[in-house]
Amino acid sequence: MISVEALWADFGSPIVTAEDYIDSLRGRDMNIFFMGERVLEPADHPVIRPSINAMAETYRIASERPELAAVHSDIAALQVNRFLHVPASPADLVAKHEMQRELGRRTGTCFQRCVGLDAIGACHSVTFDIDGKAGTDYHQRFLAFLRRAQAANIVIGGAMTDPKGDRSKAPHQQSDPDMFLHVVRRDQRGIYVSGAKMHQTGAINSHWLIFMPTMRMTANDRDWSVVGAIRVDSPGLTYVVGRQTNDTRIVDGGEMDAGNARFAGQESLIVFNEVFVPHQHVFMDGEWNHASSLVERFTTYHRSSYVCKTGLGDVLIGAAASAAEHNGVETASHIKDKLVEMTHLNETIYASCMAAAHQSKPVASGAYINDEMLSNVAKHNVTRFPFEIARLAQDIAGGLIVTMPSEKDLQNNEVGPLIRKFLQGRDGVEVTDRMRILRLIENMTIGRNAVGYLTESLHGAGSPQAQRIQIARGMKLDDKKARARNLAGVGERAK
Amino acid sequence: MISVEALWADFGSPIVTAEDYIDSLRGRDMNIFFMGERVLEPADHPVIRPSINAMAETYRIASERPELAAVHSDIAALQVNRFLHVPASPADLVAKHEMQRELGRRTGTCFQRCVGLDAIGACHSVTFDIDGKAGTDYHQRFLAFLRRAQAANIVIGGAMTDPKGDRSKAPHQQSDPDMFLHVVRRDQRGIYVSGAKMHQTGAINSHWLIFMPTMRMTANDRDWSVVGAIRVDSPGLTYVVGRQTNDTRIVDGGEMDAGNARFAGQESLIVFNEVFVPHQHVFMDGEWNHASSLVERFTTYHRSSYVCKTGLGDVLIGAAASAAEHNGVETASHIKDKLVEMTHLNETIYASCMAAAHQSKPVASGAYINDEMLSNVAKHNVTRFPFEIARLAQDIAGGLIVTMPSEKDLQNNEVGPLIRKFLQGRDGVEVTDRMRILRLIENMTIGRNAVGYLTESLHGAGSPQAQRIQIARGMKLDDKKARARNLAGVGERAK
Amino acid sequence: MISVEALWADFGSPIVTAEDYIDSLRGRDMNIFFMGERVLEPADHPVIRPSINAMAETYRIASERPELAAVHSDIAALQVNRFLHVPASPADLVAKHEMQRELGRRTGTCFQRCVGLDAIGACHSVTFDIDGKAGTDYHQRFLAFLRRAQAANIVIGGAMTDPKGDRSKAPHQQSDPDMFLHVVRRDQRGIYVSGAKMHQTGAINSHWLIFMPTMRMTANDRDWSVVGAIRVDSPGLTYVVGRQTNDTRIVDGGEMDAGNARFAGQESLIVFNEVFVPHQHVFMDGEWNHASSLVERFTTYHRSSYVCKTGLGDVLIGAAASAAEHNGVETASHIKDKLVEMTHLNETIYASCMAAAHQSKPVASGAYINDEMLSNVAKHNVTRFPFEIARLAQDIAGGLIVTMPSEKDLQNNEVGPLIRKFLQGRDGVEVTDRMRILRLIENMTIGRNAVGYLTESLHGAGSPQAQRIQIARGMKLDDKKARARNLAGVGERAK
Amino acid sequence: MISVEALWADFGSPIVTAEDYIDSLRGRDMNIFFMGERVLEPADHPVIRPSINAMAETYRIASERPELAAVHSDIAALQVNRFLHVPASPADLVAKHEMQRELGRRTGTCFQRCVGLDAIGACHSVTFDIDGKAGTDYHQRFLAFLRRAQAANIVIGGAMTDPKGDRSKAPHQQSDPDMFLHVVRRDQRGIYVSGAKMHQTGAINSHWLIFMPTMRMTANDRDWSVVGAIRVDSPGLTYVVGRQTNDTRIVDGGEMDAGNARFAGQESLIVFNEVFVPHQHVFMDGEWNHASSLVERFTTYHRSSYVCKTGLGDVLIGAAASAAEHNGVETASHIKDKLVEMTHLNETIYASCMAAAHQSKPVASGAYINDEMLSNVAKHNVTRFPFEIARLAQDIAGGLIVTMPSEKDLQNNEVGPLIRKFLQGRDGVEVTDRMRILRLIENMTIGRNAVGYLTESLHGAGSPQAQRIQIARGMKLDDKKARARNLAGVGERAK
Repeated sequence: MISVEALWADFGSPIVTAEDYIDSLRGRDMNIFFMGERVLEPADHPVIRPSINAMAETYRIASERPELAAVHSDIAALQVNRFLHVPASPADLVAKHEMQRELGRRTGTCFQRCVGLDAIGACHSVTFDIDGKAGTDYHQRFLAFLRRAQAANIVIGGAMTDPKGDRSKAPHQQSDPDMFLHVVRRDQRGIYVSGAKMHQTGAINSHWLIFMPTMRMTANDRDWSVVGAIRVDSPGLTYVVGRQTNDTRIVDGGEMDAGNARFAGQESLIVFNEVFVPHQHVFMDGEWNHASSLVERFTTYHRSSYVCKTGLGDVLIGAAASAAEHNGVETASHIKDKLVEMTHLNETIYASCMAAAHQSKPVASGAYINDEMLSNVAKHNVTRFPFEIARLAQDIAGGLIVTMPSEKDLQNNEVGPLIRKFLQGRDGVEVTDRMRILRLIENMTIGRNAVGYLTESLHGAGSPQAQRIQIARGMKLDDKKARARNLAGVGERAK
Repeated sequence: MISVEALWADFGSPIVTAEDYIDSLRGRDMNIFFMGERVLEPADHPVIRPSINAMAETYRIASERPELAAVHSDIAALQVNRFLHVPASPADLVAKHEMQRELGRRTGTCFQRCVGLDAIGACHSVTFDIDGKAGTDYHQRFLAFLRRAQAANIVIGGAMTDPKGDRSKAPHQQSDPDMFLHVVRRDQRGIYVSGAKMHQTGAINSHWLIFMPTMRMTANDRDWSVVGAIRVDSPGLTYVVGRQTNDTRIVDGGEMDAGNARFAGQESLIVFNEVFVPHQHVFMDGEWNHASSLVERFTTYHRSSYVCKTGLGDVLIGAAASAAEHNGVETASHIKDKLVEMTHLNETIYASCMAAAHQSKPVASGAYINDEMLSNVAKHNVTRFPFEIARLAQDIAGGLIVTMPSEKDLQNNEVGPLIRKFLQGRDGVEVTDRMRILRLIENMTIGRNAVGYLTESLHGAGSPQAQRIQIARGMKLDDKKARARNLAGVGERAK
Repeated sequence: MISVEALWADFGSPIVTAEDYIDSLRGRDMNIFFMGERVLEPADHPVIRPSINAMAETYRIASERPELAAVHSDIAALQVNRFLHVPASPADLVAKHEMQRELGRRTGTCFQRCVGLDAIGACHSVTFDIDGKAGTDYHQRFLAFLRRAQAANIVIGGAMTDPKGDRSKAPHQQSDPDMFLHVVRRDQRGIYVSGAKMHQTGAINSHWLIFMPTMRMTANDRDWSVVGAIRVDSPGLTYVVGRQTNDTRIVDGGEMDAGNARFAGQESLIVFNEVFVPHQHVFMDGEWNHASSLVERFTTYHRSSYVCKTGLGDVLIGAAASAAEHNGVETASHIKDKLVEMTHLNETIYASCMAAAHQSKPVASGAYINDEMLSNVAKHNVTRFPFEIARLAQDIAGGLIVTMPSEKDLQNNEVGPLIRKFLQGRDGVEVTDRMRILRLIENMTIGRNAVGYLTESLHGAGSPQAQRIQIARGMKLDDKKARARNLAGVGERAK
Repeated sequence: MISVEALWADFGSPIVTAEDYIDSLRGRDMNIFFMGERVLEPADHPVIRPSINAMAETYRIASERPELAAVHSDIAALQVNRFLHVPASPADLVAKHEMQRELGRRTGTCFQRCVGLDAIGACHSVTFDIDGKAGTDYHQRFLAFLRRAQAANIVIGGAMTDPKGDRSKAPHQQSDPDMFLHVVRRDQRGIYVSGAKMHQTGAINSHWLIFMPTMRMTANDRDWSVVGAIRVDSPGLTYVVGRQTNDTRIVDGGEMDAGNARFAGQESLIVFNEVFVPHQHVFMDGEWNHASSLVERFTTYHRSSYVCKTGLGDVLIGAAASAAEHNGVETASHIKDKLVEMTHLNETIYASCMAAAHQSKPVASGAYINDEMLSNVAKHNVTRFPFEIARLAQDIAGGLIVTMPSEKDLQNNEVGPLIRKFLQGRDGVEVTDRMRILRLIENMTIGRNAVGYLTESLHGAGSPQAQRIQIARGMKLDDKKARARNLAGVGERAK
């Protein structure tokens, strides 16, 4: 068993630049698989690399736009990357969301660091609450952990979604106990956890992971009520990177066919096999009655984090506008009207998320959390509007996004010139520029980054029904009914 | 010609209560018509009175909820009603919107005071700007006017929408110059204006009106570029109150049939025939190049003011939930799902308006104005979602809202008992309570207050196309296209 | 007790013209109430008369457009009004729907005769089926009844919707047995029924009514499983006409304010107090297990009958286009685009209904019934699209539809000229023509005929959820799942 | 130059089975490129083969379901495949659409044969019309061609969409005349055409192609007003197969990852370089004033042909229902409600297309053509509803569709067992079956067949705006306005 100090030993000098970050991922001994093959060095894997590039932008932005992405933290008494900061005011959440939109604009994809950020926020307050009730010292452990992380400027990922098995049963009722991550053994130095987390965003690109329960627990689910932080290269972890639409385009077609060759998202299945967590890195162990508040706080943060999709929306609106120009139809009233509609929907999402930030409230630990109703409303809009924005983008772009020859055809001596001749748009437009923009629209609406822009917008941070349940809980029908009765004169006698 | 002091003579002691306010409307000599008859005392007219009641709530709330509706103004150095306050911070606009939603909940209709409030905000900054460019003293005049109004605690209405005549022509090109309100004469003491303002909300219920241009003016439209404040009982004014759906229900059917017997909106056509405005009450006269900024600032304020409709939405959601209970179906999953959808849409409007308030910015005069893009987005949602909320409310309520017998039938000895027998809902529900709630839903979705909840939501503060034009102006396509080009690699050579 | 012959005595000479029809309604002794007053002669009641006019159009069209509205019936061996015809081919249903759309265009409202028509269709086949199983002679009774009705060319209304009381209980479980219409007594000559039917369309404007169960019955509900035909002036019947939005406008404001002064719909509560039905007019009495098929066949016919709303849609599109012309904006691209959208939605409804007619199938009696899935789909579209069409019509029309002065103001010497001056639209448009079109749009979207165009579109022939239940029953998931498994290779081994 | 007889020489014995068809594609000398490589034998190319399989189903169905897919043609006096039949009655179009839906269900993709079928229909009537006006013999030439094709039972493809160049210019005005296909040379034996056709569906899988103008022509566009039939292996043709989302999955991931391994669509760019067409195969040459009617008739047929997407919808609904079962949530009310919504939308498309078939009308040649308004309405629904159906399918399926490991991971000894353990759904569900269904949903919503289900639904047979233009042309505003004026009493005097 390795000591906590040893676990942190190689995080001595802080990561500063995007390049530092990429270097920091090399040479780790992780058990990663993709398409049936062991991936020894993800940073060199052509399919995985774009997801690392996207994460690296979270470092670049901290130096380029410090007013958005760097912030003083009282915890480490340092200027830290906002992705390691516990929100301490509405202004913090407002800046966070502006940063997320800007990163969406810069990458056109999921930059993968919000799960960890929102896990930090949720753990800050829940550990505080548990300690208050149970006399534990989780909050101090958590602060110590976070202080080290801030100083080292590392990426912390979050891991929440369990396989769940038979969805009608609680964790302790499952025929296979591993259907939810749980403590299988405890010793003097720490705990050992087994199970799996699915759909985990950016895990391979992180340095540490915080694992958390995925739902409300019962008194019989103590062993499943566990939160902790682990190194991503801890023994006992296996990662299987999921396939994405067009993931191998970058290999088989080339950069132009990829649409957005530099950036992509990443999700993986993480299997835990008796992974050791020293006590100092355990932030909940058995306090089952706090699991639901952890989940709710995390999702309240995280649903507003989907403001990032408005950054993707900006890119897609820009791409559609460019495609219209290339076709020479940018002044057609129906084209302009569609761009307005796309903008209207995109800004409605933005407004919902920003309102949820501005109207955030502090909890006992001092952390500020987005307004719960508005955050759910915001995410619920995210489950709808990007699909319509994508439809409109395809409408403007034309069918060529799905019938266009490969960049390799363009390089072919026989057909390359034919493609250049017949794909010529309005005068003065470079054919390859036209093709690149169309490939980007393909990428975001039916290609690799449609994974993040569409499907993840549905299911990330909870599927639509999860928001509806929260909206139902918060809709204050009693007050609303009283208002209606008052105006209707209910209780007054008919004359 | 009467002096300015004389014009203010009868506003000596401030209005305090809702009852004071109603009293203040009596005994005025105004030329008001409704359904072909002169209305001598609107406060006693059964069809008009509910609109006065709604306005009176803007006084009641100031005493009952001062944290929302009363605020210190530096202008009069007094605690004033928020409807007379120039927003001096984002918090001011946030409180304003909360007050508007609450008034929507209390009245279930348009309480008619926002046009004047938003006119005050717009005039504050535009007069400041004109003075800075033209060396005029409009801003001081305006402050003096507002100081008196704050001290007297009166209602200031706003008047903007001109008849417009041939919409392809500028004001000075119209065959009838009265198609836009304009100066017909000037003398040493002031100006004389003629023309008309249409669809004017709550004008009859006001004490003073601020009239403003309705659109961008040209250098030839100087006489039409005029802003001023007048008493609503100024000589030369004629009001024709418009008909509303079911306006006479309160007379012909009784309070129960009315649905919401106490509260309604009000709109009128105001005709100006050489109405005198002393110089002290003139805030623009000929500065045509500031007309568009006046209109834009007014609409930016006013589009967010439509947050009030979320208060009406609260009432309608509450009414639908009550109707479901009365029918014994409140636990049906499709009913609950519809209530969630109504709430989601309602809160999306709220979020848009609140974001526009939180992200307000100051202009040169120091006044804060809602974020322009978000305010347009907010209003654009208002042109859509209340219609769907209303449809869902009707869905839940059932067809009885349009087939229900009159309260007079209920009072009839022969059919009254039959109605009570057959309209009985679930056990324990009073039949008249059920009927009242259904009448309220009728009132808000296809009755008198549907005027305010639906049609006014479309056209007030500008029709949908007006928002689309503003959204188009603000959508920053150049930045968006640059982002798309960057990610697509436009300008890079195909390999 | 009166004999069957006596019951038919005064229907000797057939009704031919619309005027004949209106005359036929006079002088009947019916117990009708409206707004607390007994209505002795509905044809002379200004509020009710428009609904009679609408029904009268079903006669006028039979002479003016016999190819649509007159048809040979084998039952009476006569050319009959299509509203008395049992559909005997897809072409019959196609012609029926074209007739319904045309009547919608002619009246702009509910002409109220489809319930009875669809009751005839449903009874034809269900009586046939019962006889086949139970050895009864209902079918012959029904044919004899229909033969007389066809010969006399009378209006047969249908009555289905019971008050239902506690919706979680079957009829026999209700604390008040009258919550569903039922047999209270039987004697040698016939049966006596008590209870009530709600929301009954055009009942007062009919000559006879067919009453039917409203839902599936159980073995304990035999007394509630009853179908029969009665004269509308049968002893024991009381009618309470429901209030409609703006119903009294025609009285208080005049023809122009009414929007559509000639035509309106009508719905009433009908109370049955031991109403006698001779055996010859009883078409079901106790055969509870056929109640559900009666309801399903009726609703399958009736849901497609909502094609009439496309006729109303035609009027509203035409009105919106006229309003745009009056404003001089008919060539604006956004206006044209809205008219296209309205047309697209309207024709989608039409297509759904027509497909349900073309794909009708015969049942055992030989009657053709619309395709069940498509008929439900058609009606489900009717619960949505008219609301959007109405919203777009209001958008095009402008706010004047809810702020316009009364016709009485126009007649006033003082304000009449002002209104004419300021409501002038583009050159050459008569002000009153402009006002009339706007009043028509008010009438159909937030006025009297919005009852039929909007609320009735939701709830008539079953509320949205009723269609969803039928769609769920017919959606053949097993076949669809098999198709998916086949393409996915389910059952094949992973290599 | 080869003679017409020689051109037909190798089509002697008719193709009968799907296997015959595939064999018939081998050994042809065609100039085909994909991803920069010459494709010598498309039937053996793993990426292209699925599109050939889909086309082959059009043969299989003719023997398995002859009532749908085989029909007697008077032209060849033979029972022919319906894809070679000129519709001679509404029943023909109804059967055609049922066949198309069934093929959609069988393949889950675009089976590529409708363009040619609809070209046959359009050419039949347009050649007839030209001959009537111009004294030409195109119709006889066309019948002779079709007779041979029917006898040989070959696939005829259609080619319409030109590159168009500068969209503000007519063909003869383009700086490059090849932007529209045109006659470059004529001699005694025939004509020579150059240019290109884009987005051509199934061209490589066809035996012959009919090329047609893409839009209205002017008197100066005679050389561009050309229709003819050519062998797909004619000298001078080059094909570049477009890339589709996930097209190489079948190669890089395996059959399970492909989602629908057997079937896919296909589109290519076809370049014409002085391709010879003997006179007997020329069906228009210079009759520019018939180009628009050819395009309109083709699109009227073709827009209804999009009924095939309801077959894809059936598959996707079935897949979503299966996924819900695998997750054990198929009885959740929100899941069932989503399946109902998907069905409702799918059947609305079906109803629109079927109504357009049932209400088809004959033109002069005797061919029946779908109702134009309804066909445009049908296609316009196709540009919307599949996107919402796809969104709902993803909602039901869950995020796993975009995060799931590869089949190759499943085959890996280390991670395969982990995947089987953690992706286990409800008891009794085979993990690979669950994965296969999820991959199918990926395939249809964000994978290879989303090309056909989504993007092609937008742009095939004309983009949304093209339908709106046709709807605008057919919306008969004059009649609608007359109806509105009649009901509003326009022209009547105000009293």
